[in-house]
Amino acid sequence: MRERVLSGMRPTGALHLGHYHGALKNWVQLQHQYDCFFVVADWHALTTADNRSAHLEHHVYDMVVDWLAAGVDPDKATLFIQSRLPEHAELFTLLAMSTPLSWLERTPAYKDRLSQAPDAESTSYGFLGYPLLQAADILVYRAGWVPVGEDQAPHVELTREVARRFNHLYGKDGHSAPLVEPQLLLTDTARLPGLDGQKMSKSLGNSIAMRDDPEAVRDKVRRMPTDPQRVHRSDAGEPERCPVWPLHQLYTPADEREALAQGCRSAGIGCLDCKQPLIEAIVREQAPWRERAQAVLDNPRQVHWMVELGCERARTVARQTLKEVRDVMGLSYG
Amino acid sequence: MRERVLSGMRPTGALHLGHYHGALKNWVQLQHQYDCFFVVADWHALTTADNRSAHLEHHVYDMVVDWLAAGVDPDKATLFIQSRLPEHAELFTLLAMSTPLSWLERTPAYKDRLSQAPDAESTSYGFLGYPLLQAADILVYRAGWVPVGEDQAPHVELTREVARRFNHLYGKDGHSAPLVEPQLLLTDTARLPGLDGQKMSKSLGNSIAMRDDPEAVRDKVRRMPTDPQRVHRSDAGEPERCPVWPLHQLYTPADEREALAQGCRSAGIGCLDCKQPLIEAIVREQAPWRERAQAVLDNPRQVHWMVELGCERARTVARQTLKEVRDVMGLSYG
Ligand code: SF4
Ligand code: SF4
Repeated sequence: MRERVLSGMRPTGALHLGHYHGALKNWVQLQHQYDCFFVVADWHALTTADNRSAHLEHHVYDMVVDWLAAGVDPDKATLFIQSRLPEHAELFTLLAMSTPLSWLERTPAYKDRLSQAPDAESTSYGFLGYPLLQAADILVYRAGWVPVGEDQAPHVELTREVARRFNHLYGKDGHSAPLVEPQLLLTDTARLPGLDGQKMSKSLGNSIAMRDDPEAVRDKVRRMPTDPQRVHRSDAGEPERCPVWPLHQLYTPADEREALAQGCRSAGIGCLDCKQPLIEAIVREQAPWRERAQAVLDNPRQVHWMVELGCERARTVARQTLKEVRDVMGLSYG
Repeated sequence: MRERVLSGMRPTGALHLGHYHGALKNWVQLQHQYDCFFVVADWHALTTADNRSAHLEHHVYDMVVDWLAAGVDPDKATLFIQSRLPEHAELFTLLAMSTPLSWLERTPAYKDRLSQAPDAESTSYGFLGYPLLQAADILVYRAGWVPVGEDQAPHVELTREVARRFNHLYGKDGHSAPLVEPQLLLTDTARLPGLDGQKMSKSLGNSIAMRDDPEAVRDKVRRMPTDPQRVHRSDAGEPERCPVWPLHQLYTPADEREALAQGCRSAGIGCLDCKQPLIEAIVREQAPWRERAQAVLDNPRQVHWMVELGCERARTVARQTLKEVRDVMGLSYG
């Protein structure tokens, strides 16, 4: 039996290259080795006011289409929607009873928030509990592994503490430990900067969507700023100062890249010459995504069935966990 | 259609006279006028460590038996168990997203707790959220009325605020307000002091259980302290100083009581003489409870069926509310 991996994303709509290289590409690998559960964390999109959106449904399905486009295979992985499984909320509620407030008050996200918006009126109870809901998302599937970047490591550590405490409080009397402490699956993902060199983000308007068409990709890359010291075609440039360069490091083979760097430093090539192979590489990478996405969009009902099936699979696991959790808590009457 | 009333109790096991006069007696009245939902709030028993009990199941059924003993009629009222309805947890989780932390931080119970146990390690996230879970318990049934004592009024007020905010945030776009703001049903209940004059409470060991047998009642009342200044039979006493007196005020008709007071003040009667009519009144009050409880205990399966049926009825209402809540939140996809 393959070990279980749990990962998820908040539904922010159509995904961009940053999502692909930062997570999705890795998911596609993981699904071959692990029993992968990928969750649309839609409740999490509600913890902050700016995300309370009338477009949630579109965001959810646009995202799922991009998961499939990237190569996530619903026959290998379980794709499902958090809000369809009240078991997440039930475990969250039960864990809330045994999780010290102080553990949540010391999470980085909450501290950041307090320093930015010290009036507690604008911070919701759910925002404080966000990492605990995340812990419930993981623990309800008894996932052994959680693939996250370094910055998410504290959340996985909290999940482990929550599970350990719960097992300690309730796991006695010959019961085996009802919850599994997940391990961090540190993985090789790339952080892709946006068109302006900042973190790629839809809200910053500096992203290339996974399903941007070739014209849009070409326009966006062509308009990217370059080495600010290379004002004229005849000026020599320095790739290390250029926002385009990190994209080359991801998309362009080393030898070709070396040639471009030399061309830049010697003013042997212009910036548009330099950008052209990048545009081609991105468009090439997108080709299979576009194809898979089209197949999905041609049959929208199928996505719904697929999600439905994923929810059912997830439910089977979640129900079993909740059953055991209620058992050890002495809540299995009626 | 009768308006709905929601009330509940934490499962503390067999109930005592304080529960009866403080709540149950009122419930029995209310069930004739209202569509009463009475909930065993078992999750609430988990918010503090001292209540994490291996005996929860016994506590739940002992309590339900006493509800029935008191005259709560499962054909009139809906009796059910909170933990059997994950809808409570789902609504709690959803409300958490829109409820400011500050509203919960300012509740009297939380402030008390902080002043008593300032280290947040011993206070759980669920303890802070207790009033919000209570709000969810009420709102999930769209109860119009909540019968509570004055001391619980702030909790109902919080419930109203939570509902109002939710309706304000999500109730637009032609949707009617999905949640109902409940009103306080201030009712005539009596606070029964315990055998020592303090609040009657099982944990203080100063209570008379609803199903204590006549011998136990007699012994307990006989051992009650009386006016501390009435040391000898020949000393005159003062009912106002005597812990027995509040019980007489509840159980003894005014004229009879007047005679006892005179007997006390003139040393005309002894304390056991004074206590005897009280013992008889309590035993008389208990008689129908004992009878009904016995009928229930003779057929324990029936209680389970009855609770099962109550849970099903509650589920029908809760599901409908959650459906509408998800609709207005834009979470109805899949
Ligand atoms: S040639 Fe390439 S690396 Fe050099 S400044 Fe232009 S875009 Fe940047
Ligand atoms: S006679 Fe009755 S009221 Fe007076 S002290 Fe004794 S028990 Fe109390």
